[in-house]
Amino acid sequence: MKTLSLIGIGPGGPEYLTMQAVEALRTTDCFFMLEKEGRGKDELIEARRTILARYLPNANPRLVTRASPPRCMDANGYREGVQQWHERKRVLIAEMIEQELAEGERGAFLIWGDPSLYDQTVSLISDLVAAAPERLELVVIPGITAVQALTAAHRIPVNRVGEPIAITTGRAIRQQDPRAIRNSVVMLDNNAEFQHLTDQDLEIYWGAYLGCGDQALAAGPLDEVLEELLALRERLREEKGWIMDTYLLRRR
Amino acid sequence: MKTLSLIGIGPGGPEYLTMQAVEALRTTDCFFMLEKEGRGKDELIEARRTILARYLPNANPRLVTRASPPRCMDANGYREGVQQWHERKRVLIAEMIEQELAEGERGAFLIWGDPSLYDQTVSLISDLVAAAPERLELVVIPGITAVQALTAAHRIPVNRVGEPIAITTGRAIRQQDPRAIRNSVVMLDNNAEFQHLTDQDLEIYWGAYLGCGDQALAAGPLDEVLEELLALRERLREEKGWIMDTYLLRRR
Ligand SMILES: C[S@@+](CC[C@H](N)C(=O)[O-])C[C@H]1O[C@@H](n2cnc3c(N)ncnc32)[C@H](O)[C@@H]1O
Ligand SMILES: C[S@@+](CC[C@H](N)C(=O)[O-])C[C@H]1O[C@@H](n2cnc3c(N)ncnc32)[C@H](O)[C@@H]1O
Repeated sequence: MKTLSLIGIGPGGPEYLTMQAVEALRTTDCFFMLEKEGRGKDELIEARRTILARYLPNANPRLVTRASPPRCMDANGYREGVQQWHERKRVLIAEMIEQELAEGERGAFLIWGDPSLYDQTVSLISDLVAAAPERLELVVIPGITAVQALTAAHRIPVNRVGEPIAITTGRAIRQQDPRAIRNSVVMLDNNAEFQHLTDQDLEIYWGAYLGCGDQALAAGPLDEVLEELLALRERLREEKGWIMDTYLLRRR
Repeated sequence: MKTLSLIGIGPGGPEYLTMQAVEALRTTDCFFMLEKEGRGKDELIEARRTILARYLPNANPRLVTRASPPRCMDANGYREGVQQWHERKRVLIAEMIEQELAEGERGAFLIWGDPSLYDQTVSLISDLVAAAPERLELVVIPGITAVQALTAAHRIPVNRVGEPIAITTGRAIRQQDPRAIRNSVVMLDNNAEFQHLTDQDLEIYWGAYLGCGDQALAAGPLDEVLEELLALRERLREEKGWIMDTYLLRRR
C-alpha cells in the first residue's frame, strides 16, 4: 500500500497552512511537484519551497519534480483538449507513484488553495485509486481558498443573509445572462470579463496575488471603478509578467 | 483604537486552525463568546475551549461570555425577524467592546468555519467600524469551511472541470426549480430538503459533524440512498440531540 496526500496550502503565504497540513508535511516521505511552464511558474514553485523550508527546517525532504504536460490547445474543442491533457497528467502521476514511492511510503502534492476547488488532481488520483484500491490510498487535506483570502482581505461576507453564492469561471460568466448575476465569485479569468458587465448595478470586490506579499485590492460600484481597475490590472500584469486574480460581483 | 479579530476556526477540531489563526490567538487580549441556546450549545462552546487550551496552554486568556440574543420568530416575516435579531446582536457586541476592551487592546471572536460564509458577524462589526472608523479596526482571518471539510472527507472536487458551483441554504433550495440544480452545496438545512429532490438524477455527498470526532458520511445516487440516509440522519439527531450537516447535490 502507498499513500498519496493532497495537501491544501492556501493562497500563497506559509501562514495559511492549517495545523493538519503542517502535520501532514511532517509525515510525508516524498513531495511531488509538477512544474507548469509560463505564468508565475517560478513564484509558485518558490512558494512551495518556502513552505517546506519553514515547516521542515531540519529535514531534507525528497522532492520529485516533473514538467507538467502542456495543455493541448489544438485538440478538437475545449472539452476534448482538457480530457487529453488530464489523461497525460494521470499517466505522469501514475509513473511518479510507481517509480518514486516505495511500498508503505507516503507521497504528497502541495495543492494551491484548497484541493477541491478548480483543481483536477483529486479526480485524477481518484481514478488511479479506483483502478487499484488495494495498492493506493488518497488523503485530502483542506486549505484556504483564494475566495476566502478575497473576502477576508475585503472584510466582507461572501453572501448576504440567506443568499446563495455562485463560484464560477471567466469562461462561464461570459456565457451567462448578466441580469442573472446576484452574488458570483469569478476565478480562472484571464480576460477581465467584468469589463463586459457594466450597467448592471453590480459591485465588484477584486483581489490579485491574494495572501502573497504583493496582494492588491480594489472595490466599488463596477461602473465607477472599471477604468481604474483595468488600468491597475494591466500595470500589475506588466510589472510581474503574470497575474492571478479573483473577484466577487454582487448585485446591489 | 481597539482591534477586533474574527478568527475562523474551521469545522470543529483544533487541527483545522491555520498558522495565521494560531498566531492571532496568541496576540488576543480578550475572547468574546456569544452562547446560543439550544442545539449543540455545549459542544460548540467546548470546541472553542479546547482550541484555546491547545494553543494557549500557558496563558489564562480573558473570556467574556454573553447569551446570544434569541432569534425573534414572531416578527413580521423572515427578513424582518432576521433584521431585528441582527440589530440586537450589534448592540450587544458594541457593549462588549465598550465595556470589556481597553484602548489599544485586541479582542476576538472565534468563528465556526470561515467568517465569510453564512455568518453575520463580519457585517455586524463592519457596521460598528463604519460608525467609528478611528476607534475600531476589524481583522478577518480565514478558516476552513464545512464545505471544504465535506469535499475533503469524500475526496471529491466541489466542481467538475469548468463547472460553476452554488452554495445555498435549505430554505433557498426548497424554492428553486429542481431541474436547475447542477452542482449545489446546501447548508443551514434543518429539514433534510434533499428528500424532495428525488427523480432528478442527482448524486448526494452528505456529511454531519464534519471534522469533529463523530463525523458521519454518506454518498450515492440520491434515489437509491435516500431511505438509508434519512434513517441515519434521524438516528444521529436523536443520539446527540442535534445535528449539523452539509451536502453536495450533483447532477450526473
Ligand atoms: C486553478 S484555480 C485553483 C484555485 C485554488 N485551488 C483555490 O482553492 O483557490 C486558479 C485560480 O484561482 C484564483 N487564485 C488562486 N490563487 C489566487 C491568489 N493568491 N490571488 C488571487 N486569485 C487566486 C485565480 O482566479 C486563478 O485563476
Ligand atoms: C451558520 S452556518 C456557518 C457556516 C460556517 N461559517 C462555515 O464556514 O462552515 C452553519 C451551517 O454550516 C454547516 N456546518 C457548519 N459546521 C459543520 C460541520 N462541522 N459539519 C457539517 N456541517 C456543518 C451546516 O450546514 C450548518 O447549518
